[in-house]
Amino acid sequence: MNLLSDFCFPASVAVIGVSADTSAFGTLYLGALLKFGFKGKLYPVNRRGGSVLGMSVYSSLEGVPGDVDLAVISVPGRAVVGTLEDCLKKGIKTAIVLSAGFGETDIEGKKLEEELAMVVAKGIRVIGPNCHGVYCPRSGMTLVPGSNFPRESGPVALISQSGGFAEMIVLQSRGIGIRYSKVISYGNAVDVGESDFLEALAEDADTKIIMAYVEGVKDGRRFLEVVRRTSKVKPVLIWKAGLTDMGRRAAGSHTGSLAGSKFLWDTFFAQSGAVQIGSTDDLIDTALAFLNLPPRIGRRVALVTGSGGAGVIGSDACERLNLSMPTLSAEAQHRISSLLPSIGTSVRNPVDLATPRPRTSVLTGVLEAVAASDEIDIIVLGRMFLSSKGPELVLGLKNRPEEYREDLLEIPLTIRQQFGKPIVVVLSEEVTDREMIDFEADRRSVRDFYLSHGIPVYPTLERAVSALANVVRYRERFDHTSVAL
Amino acid sequence: MNLLSDFCFPASVAVIGVSADTSAFGTLYLGALLKFGFKGKLYPVNRRGGSVLGMSVYSSLEGVPGDVDLAVISVPGRAVVGTLEDCLKKGIKTAIVLSAGFGETDIEGKKLEEELAMVVAKGIRVIGPNCHGVYCPRSGMTLVPGSNFPRESGPVALISQSGGFAEMIVLQSRGIGIRYSKVISYGNAVDVGESDFLEALAEDADTKIIMAYVEGVKDGRRFLEVVRRTSKVKPVLIWKAGLTDMGRRAAGSHTGSLAGSKFLWDTFFAQSGAVQIGSTDDLIDTALAFLNLPPRIGRRVALVTGSGGAGVIGSDACERLNLSMPTLSAEAQHRISSLLPSIGTSVRNPVDLATPRPRTSVLTGVLEAVAASDEIDIIVLGRMFLSSKGPELVLGLKNRPEEYREDLLEIPLTIRQQFGKPIVVVLSEEVTDREMIDFEADRRSVRDFYLSHGIPVYPTLERAVSALANVVRYRERFDHTSVAL
Repeated sequence: MNLLSDFCFPASVAVIGVSADTSAFGTLYLGALLKFGFKGKLYPVNRRGGSVLGMSVYSSLEGVPGDVDLAVISVPGRAVVGTLEDCLKKGIKTAIVLSAGFGETDIEGKKLEEELAMVVAKGIRVIGPNCHGVYCPRSGMTLVPGSNFPRESGPVALISQSGGFAEMIVLQSRGIGIRYSKVISYGNAVDVGESDFLEALAEDADTKIIMAYVEGVKDGRRFLEVVRRTSKVKPVLIWKAGLTDMGRRAAGSHTGSLAGSKFLWDTFFAQSGAVQIGSTDDLIDTALAFLNLPPRIGRRVALVTGSGGAGVIGSDACERLNLSMPTLSAEAQHRISSLLPSIGTSVRNPVDLATPRPRTSVLTGVLEAVAASDEIDIIVLGRMFLSSKGPELVLGLKNRPEEYREDLLEIPLTIRQQFGKPIVVVLSEEVTDREMIDFEADRRSVRDFYLSHGIPVYPTLERAVSALANVVRYRERFDHTSVAL
Repeated sequence: MNLLSDFCFPASVAVIGVSADTSAFGTLYLGALLKFGFKGKLYPVNRRGGSVLGMSVYSSLEGVPGDVDLAVISVPGRAVVGTLEDCLKKGIKTAIVLSAGFGETDIEGKKLEEELAMVVAKGIRVIGPNCHGVYCPRSGMTLVPGSNFPRESGPVALISQSGGFAEMIVLQSRGIGIRYSKVISYGNAVDVGESDFLEALAEDADTKIIMAYVEGVKDGRRFLEVVRRTSKVKPVLIWKAGLTDMGRRAAGSHTGSLAGSKFLWDTFFAQSGAVQIGSTDDLIDTALAFLNLPPRIGRRVALVTGSGGAGVIGSDACERLNLSMPTLSAEAQHRISSLLPSIGTSVRNPVDLATPRPRTSVLTGVLEAVAASDEIDIIVLGRMFLSSKGPELVLGLKNRPEEYREDLLEIPLTIRQQFGKPIVVVLSEEVTDREMIDFEADRRSVRDFYLSHGIPVYPTLERAVSALANVVRYRERFDHTSVAL
């Protein structure tokens, strides 16, 4: 079998356990597939027959005409084993079990999960139980609820033990243009699990970056081996939840996972080369950096800011994450000095322009001097208003000439093109007043402008530096500049 | 002298160093005071005379009729000492020196700062140099640029070595309703400094919480003593920047500060009782928690979420920050079980409702059971849509009945009132697509609804838990339930 094509590109799907109750999970699943636009054949099944969402319901799997590639099962937990037996009879070799009520509950549930494992051994591969499905824009498969997920594919794959998080991560990253090849919510992983998916995704040509939200793994030794091998060919971003006692306990009642000790996981991250992730923001931030920064990237940062305080906290953040901030050469300092007032500014690195809204000629000249410096690998541009609307709204600077807008916006692009130095932009979410939603709308326009040109954008300096450090650390370990992202 | 009344409530201010160039700092300062609505007398001074912003300019301090309470000086660095001598002649006893070019620059600047200190010794108190002024809504004083700061006062005071950060913190906290009694940007602190302000703010009846952004302190021993004393009467939130080598270097060229070693500062935080802050978000989040949570608050958290993953990461966050999450009593678990489907949910704590949009009766019943539990001090409500517009926009749930909206929104208020247990709400900034700005507008409405009822709101579980932990740690150390916030 080919794991990804079997689960993500079925030509026909039987949805078993639909019901007249439109809030039933199976019916929500069927509705999501219909609305999202699944391209293959769909067979709703319920032993009571009838019709659901305008489709005729088959009263048994047996009655379904023709072959079924994949069964998606949403019957009560106790009925899952029998349903899988029916699938075997029908010749179905792959199933996604949405139903919950297994190892994450009580002794009875754990017993039920063991029975499920025994059916699997008879020749059917299973994702789940206790999961939300698979999202694959190319085939039109989607999660529940995921009918409004992006239709376009992208280079990121996500595997998640939590269905809710799978959904949240896709939605939260949608706004910044991150698109997915495959997203797999895999729940309790009675059969196919984290290591299987990673092995398959390592070889998946549509996937350049792999994200994983993991509560526990079934076979730690194998997982380490697979992550180690996979990390050599593409970045594997792993968010391991349940690293504390209370988190472990919660993971037990969520996906029935044995979460493992922190010590074990520290060793795992040190040995495997996986990028360790600490939160949803961190996961998405890091993916954005991998997607937009060139394969060859060094740790020597120049920080150009509109505020001296930002220079100080940015320097703190860089050092904590082991990035360096070399003092600029005398020549670069001299060039920058000639552009800035001698007082209130700094020119060594961080470079403090002492205004969040510098003149076009000043920003251009400073960035040219910094980008021309051999001692610098990357420029981080922090606490600056690059559109004219932002400062108008925040500072009441209504009299600035209109041409400011396009000029400042384009400068980072021009510098990057001219000097080949990557740039990261920080656009602060400074103003969150309900009535100043225009500021946020403008911030998003500016953000999207840079994102569309491959410049990563972050809401805080700390998050920018953290994402950058994740990429640098990975690139230094696996120097595979040949892998194009 | 009374430091705060002298600097924040002058009856008359001379702005020395205004200029015909409207982008000159002195002129910006004058403009900000005019626009913000300073209530006292204003005397612009420049030796060339003329007029600025519709006001006649005095060609010398001597020529100003009547007394001047406060001089705000924005002349070039070399001219500051002479200007202060003029102030002394005029009988002015307080001055704010906005001008930069002192200890933060080179040997010459450091020498200039020493000269400045010598004039101070002759009998004038000075804030600055290298600062942005003072913001005090009650008197109509403001920072540069701060003409659009809130006109209302509030219970928070901020002292900041960085003028840019002072501005940014006021703006960023404005949206969530944090209001200030006094904000003081104090730059290089040649005379009045962090310890003086804290001593004064400790006794300021208008100030209930003190925030400080500090790069370096002049007298560590005194600072420790003052913070220790102040912390006993009100929370002191200290963001110490420049804790790394690179950060220290940056602080040197920003405010000429000797930033001190990390070890020293670890000891300081352990001994002083100050709340240690790590970022702008952390500062604002923590202030919000202090403002809205009752003085008596324990560390036993119940986490009620709409997603099992959120339960796991919330548990991790609580344990890392030393909050506890007791398993709910058998009785509470039983009550909750009776309300939730037995599968896919968790009832022990975290309580996982397995849907971000529970029914009114379910959320009410669950929160009642949790709030009635003696083993719980506070409820954190995570990953849930409490308005109906949110899920409509995110999940496409257009068919939900209209009455859902008011019901869910009010539930946390009712529970808090009924059981006296504080509640913290997490409203995720899940959707950031440019064209889905409506989601953010709705999120802000819901946020403001809770904030207006004294329920703190955070964008992520991690930030909620972190702010809560800061408050709990402080309250456990200083059990002054008599201090009303």
